[in-house]
Amino acid sequence: MISKKEFQRLHRSIKPYIHRTPVFSSHLLNELAGTSIFFKCENFQRAGAFKMRGATAAILNLSEQVRKKGVVTHSSGNFAQAVSLAAKNLGIPAYIVMPSSAPEVKKAAVKNYEGKITICQPTLKDREEAAEKIVKETGATFLHPSNQLDVIYGQGTAAIELLEEQPDLDLVITPVGGGGLLAGSALAVNYFGKSCECFGAEPFEVDDAYQSLKSGKIETNKSTNTIADGLKTQLGDKNFPLIQKYVSEIIRVEEDEIVSAMRLIWERMKIIVEPSSAVAFAALLREKKKFRGKKTGIIISGGNVDLSNLPF
Amino acid sequence: MISKKEFQRLHRSIKPYIHRTPVFSSHLLNELAGTSIFFKCENFQRAGAFKMRGATAAILNLSEQVRKKGVVTHSSGNFAQAVSLAAKNLGIPAYIVMPSSAPEVKKAAVKNYEGKITICQPTLKDREEAAEKIVKETGATFLHPSNQLDVIYGQGTAAIELLEEQPDLDLVITPVGGGGLLAGSALAVNYFGKSCECFGAEPFEVDDAYQSLKSGKIETNKSTNTIADGLKTQLGDKNFPLIQKYVSEIIRVEEDEIVSAMRLIWERMKIIVEPSSAVAFAALLREKKKFRGKKTGIIISGGNVDLSNLPF
Repeated sequence: MISKKEFQRLHRSIKPYIHRTPVFSSHLLNELAGTSIFFKCENFQRAGAFKMRGATAAILNLSEQVRKKGVVTHSSGNFAQAVSLAAKNLGIPAYIVMPSSAPEVKKAAVKNYEGKITICQPTLKDREEAAEKIVKETGATFLHPSNQLDVIYGQGTAAIELLEEQPDLDLVITPVGGGGLLAGSALAVNYFGKSCECFGAEPFEVDDAYQSLKSGKIETNKSTNTIADGLKTQLGDKNFPLIQKYVSEIIRVEEDEIVSAMRLIWERMKIIVEPSSAVAFAALLREKKKFRGKKTGIIISGGNVDLSNLPF
Repeated sequence: MISKKEFQRLHRSIKPYIHRTPVFSSHLLNELAGTSIFFKCENFQRAGAFKMRGATAAILNLSEQVRKKGVVTHSSGNFAQAVSLAAKNLGIPAYIVMPSSAPEVKKAAVKNYEGKITICQPTLKDREEAAEKIVKETGATFLHPSNQLDVIYGQGTAAIELLEEQPDLDLVITPVGGGGLLAGSALAVNYFGKSCECFGAEPFEVDDAYQSLKSGKIETNKSTNTIADGLKTQLGDKNFPLIQKYVSEIIRVEEDEIVSAMRLIWERMKIIVEPSSAVAFAALLREKKKFRGKKTGIIISGGNVDLSNLPF
């Protein structure tokens, strides 16, 4: 595991390539929640989500020899855009395997960042095979969106910045999907917080992280019927031990709580956040008795939303 | 007319009661427009719009004797909320005349800021009579949302802040409805800009300001069929002379240009802006040949949107 000093060094190394996103607060939302909330706005991050941090950290971690051959990932979401832009910033090729079912707008975003797209059948097996083929042919390095240590540490740098600005937070809440953001944030909270706890938040509909902490092994979701489309994936063997060690609790929320938390953030803070991001705020509202009077940090993970398909 | 020094003093006086809103930029929108754009985000202003500046300036301008009797306005929009909150901040009553047709959500917002609501028939005559009655009964002072000099100067302080951060802007564009924001901004640009010009932007559907500049007298809109609901009103005798003297041009835009500019801002910048605010950016896009390579400031006037009734 990375040391505190190495974590700081990693953070410094990615700074030229990422935005230092602002921390927002709202009187009204504070009143509503009964706590002081500091929203770390990764929706304003480059490529629209925190994933830019992990992608950049992972690429910078490659030797120059290896790096110049490029990077590969399979993703239909924010990580595809992040890897494309991070690779572009560092002058190397990015090979992105996308399922044929991926929306045109996502493909266009990847192309815009000069990612080289390979379309495959929309199954995990096809995606993995297509990515492996590219690795063999090009010598490019495969990047995993959430279960790779340098990616995890990169994602954790948002919490480092939040704690730099608000050093006496009592807790930090992040959404949990694949587990990269939560694991990285939990380690950051452990290193850089003063008696600060880290909580995960996920929909009841995809409560694999909650179930995994309970059973002590990585659980999978039987169905993934949630509006929080970034949170459908499961934990991995690299991030799960960090989550077990450093996360206090996973709070689960209902779908209508996600939509109403999202609407509150949009209406009151005038910022666009993804449903997945709203899950952390929904968790705070659900458990507000528990957190009353505390100083809470929330990682707003991203702002990539399809405006043609809103839940209100 | 206010002097440069007095303008600065007025700005200092309102600072404790308003947010210094951030200035945002977007690589992608810059590329699209062919200019560097600095968005002054008054959608993050208290009560969700620049109107908070003018309302606060006007109340602070009253003698203590007069002020304590309170203030009155008639509005169904952002000014009602701004006057209520500004009055609450200064510990005086705010009497708000609202038409019976005003949406519940607007009434709730005014109540939330402790404004005392009087409901009247939805005609201008009824609104004015109801306000006059309150003035007579309570001794409160009537505040006009756009045609009152201290309100106009207050609105202009957003442009002062923008020019403090970006002193070498070539132009500033604001939407124009009642004319308060445009007149105040134009005066600020004249005092605080270096060879900076001020432009107004309005929908073709309500091009009264354009027509007024052309004819040399205040014109009214025959119909007000625009999505930019904050821009339906006409200029007044206090702001029109300032607009005539200090505004270079009014740029008109089509309704579909407003919607697409609004969508671009939402999608690319991840912030919620009103249709009225998108009008200024739509004007820049429409006239992009003219402004290519320039450094442009845009006042994002507000972010109060009905999420249940979006144009996309």
